[in-house]
Amino acid sequence: MSGTPENAPENAPDIAEERARVTPERVEDGFRRMWRDLLPAGRHDTTGGYRRHAWTAADAECRAWFAEQARNRGLAYEVDRNGNQWAWLGDPTAGDAVVAGSHLDSVPDGGAYDGPLGVVSAFAALDALRERDAPCGGEAPRERGARPARPLAIVNFADEEGARFGVACAGSRLMTGVLAPDRARGLRDGDGVTLAEAMERAGHDPSALGRDDERLSRIGVFVELHVEQGRHLARTPHPVGVASAIWPHGRWRFDFRGEANHAGTTRMEDRRDPMPAYAATVLAAVERARATGALATFGRVRVEPNGTNAIASLVTAWLDARAPDSATLDTLVKEITRAAGGAEVVCESSTPVVDFDVPLTEWLAGLLGGVPVLPTGAGHDAGVLAAEIPTAMLFVRNPTGVSHSPDEHAGERDCLAGVAALADVLHELL
Amino acid sequence: MSGTPENAPENAPDIAEERARVTPERVEDGFRRMWRDLLPAGRHDTTGGYRRHAWTAADAECRAWFAEQARNRGLAYEVDRNGNQWAWLGDPTAGDAVVAGSHLDSVPDGGAYDGPLGVVSAFAALDALRERDAPCGGEAPRERGARPARPLAIVNFADEEGARFGVACAGSRLMTGVLAPDRARGLRDGDGVTLAEAMERAGHDPSALGRDDERLSRIGVFVELHVEQGRHLARTPHPVGVASAIWPHGRWRFDFRGEANHAGTTRMEDRRDPMPAYAATVLAAVERARATGALATFGRVRVEPNGTNAIASLVTAWLDARAPDSATLDTLVKEITRAAGGAEVVCESSTPVVDFDVPLTEWLAGLLGGVPVLPTGAGHDAGVLAAEIPTAMLFVRNPTGVSHSPDEHAGERDCLAGVAALADVLHELL
Repeated sequence: MSGTPENAPENAPDIAEERARVTPERVEDGFRRMWRDLLPAGRHDTTGGYRRHAWTAADAECRAWFAEQARNRGLAYEVDRNGNQWAWLGDPTAGDAVVAGSHLDSVPDGGAYDGPLGVVSAFAALDALRERDAPCGGEAPRERGARPARPLAIVNFADEEGARFGVACAGSRLMTGVLAPDRARGLRDGDGVTLAEAMERAGHDPSALGRDDERLSRIGVFVELHVEQGRHLARTPHPVGVASAIWPHGRWRFDFRGEANHAGTTRMEDRRDPMPAYAATVLAAVERARATGALATFGRVRVEPNGTNAIASLVTAWLDARAPDSATLDTLVKEITRAAGGAEVVCESSTPVVDFDVPLTEWLAGLLGGVPVLPTGAGHDAGVLAAEIPTAMLFVRNPTGVSHSPDEHAGERDCLAGVAALADVLHELL
Repeated sequence: MSGTPENAPENAPDIAEERARVTPERVEDGFRRMWRDLLPAGRHDTTGGYRRHAWTAADAECRAWFAEQARNRGLAYEVDRNGNQWAWLGDPTAGDAVVAGSHLDSVPDGGAYDGPLGVVSAFAALDALRERDAPCGGEAPRERGARPARPLAIVNFADEEGARFGVACAGSRLMTGVLAPDRARGLRDGDGVTLAEAMERAGHDPSALGRDDERLSRIGVFVELHVEQGRHLARTPHPVGVASAIWPHGRWRFDFRGEANHAGTTRMEDRRDPMPAYAATVLAAVERARATGALATFGRVRVEPNGTNAIASLVTAWLDARAPDSATLDTLVKEITRAAGGAEVVCESSTPVVDFDVPLTEWLAGLLGGVPVLPTGAGHDAGVLAAEIPTAMLFVRNPTGVSHSPDEHAGERDCLAGVAALADVLHELL
């Protein structure tokens, strides 16, 4: 189905035809209904966290939900060659499209907001735009009753978290050519399944992966709304903020090799136990990150053979490191590598600093009434697209700052303020 | 089939009938054949290590091999209520039996010798005994051609390593009542399967688990041959040694709790990351064990949610600790617990010091020509049975000392010397 609209654009109901049926409550109700429908997909019974990993059954459920939302609104639905989902209002090939959206996949035991809030809000913002064009809306529609001058698309980027195959933003990186198709196809999950095999099993042909110039040429601007993953906005009266930049960041795999042996019979001085070297590296990473105002995390570890009475033969651990600038990040990773002694260190992904389009960002902040402009340490598809296309991000306040956790949360009023802000932005851009 | 002899004892061929067919080479060939037949069961293609975890398909293969060896020799085969396998020569219920054997299960990616060498050697030693009773043997058979005065049994204790359900020596601990049946039935593997369910799926009824007085009353002496799991004998000219004692040892589970959060957005000072606390505990354990002449190992770790860009919410790690005496062990574990700060620490199993039967051990060492007598830090079913029955262990030299690893190895000549020594011991005991 890749690249083929499921619903032809001419089937999209004209905004004018919707007038009689919309109300402001309907937008809020629609938001709540979408949120509720999506909530059970990939939720783990015990942890309450989400396991919507790319190209799994849970991911397929989310993707089916997206296709249904497009269908419900009469939008043209398509899947691009890299597996990203698109829902179009207006002619997809007209060019200079305004695109909003985010992703639906999750980290292991992630929260409900990281990703889905951006996609749900984009559909709700479209509903609000249609609302404003209704006779009772009265909020200065530019082209009341008319089809928007620019096409509008809502996107769900595939495999943003990289939880299964280790490379974040795989969908947008493939689309922009930053991730080579052959490398992508060969990525393996923890069970040895390649990304190509996983895509095939999910019904997506992996042979056409790669940079998608035709699609990139369609897009004039991309706006990604996302739950904030820190507590900047929580310290302000603003439910919504605008992103200024994404810190440079990356993932490094550390292989600490030793020799498996019996924990009960091998003298301490005869051991080649890799666990203490790993432990020393964790402590060095924390100390160095604190000293330099950067972030360093070892949150993923794999031990072989992982038996209580066996000295480990191999400890593999992944470092996530981020810093305000590239020089600080380079020094940090070098120092942690030095602390790791003889461990083999492989950079699995690395993203330079992203400064979002400055005029666009300033215009957005002004449009929304002087909301805060803040940098973030988190990578996003918007960060990948920013290298190609004028791109901006909106953040919705997160009262605890918690993210990548079942406890991730944003208040409903703040989420609806995010929808309203995104609708304002799209309204002005269209 | 529990408790029911598969081959009636009267079907066992009289040793006298075997005379014409046996040769010394036949014993060695038989050893090699048994070894070769058992070798593929549960071997992992990639690591070359063994994954013969209790009540799995690989374990069933090993158990089928044991039953076949019993059948081939016309021995009475039975499975006791706790899942241990027995092969009897002579009347199982006569009492005062001489028992040899070990276990066939493995740690994750364990070696071929730990366990199986003792079982294979027991069958080979029986073959050698029959050999000696042959006319050309000429090595002073006490009762040439007669059935032995005491019954002889070969045993495969179930679930010695505890790799799947976390409790080592489960088969012998259940038999002696050290492990309560209800606790055993409720033990869960990493997939949440209980031991009771696993036994049922493997065709063993778990309802009858528990102390087996009738069986214990049958046994007069137990001798377990085992590959050495250190390099004591490697520094001597002796291929075989005798165990003096097993160090007190145990397993403790440490739960380091934190709060999952985004690795890219949560400031170092705002984190509740349990990984650094775990790391500090590993380093403290190594330092304390070295300082006190004890052993401390963290070789098994589980991280939740275990995502590269997620701060861990929980690090669970298992400490294996051993020391020459209980006071040293207690102090060691207390100090490591203190270093772990607020971690929740649960003792999953604990075994006091085992001093093997002193007259038996001295008699054995003398019988074998003054071989070394050495303590070990490794737990064994022999250590569990020693509380009830006169028990001894023979160790076969391990040139590298490596164990619980695919690299575990003993030379064939040393293994055959072990068979000969075990045959000598059984010959004298019967």
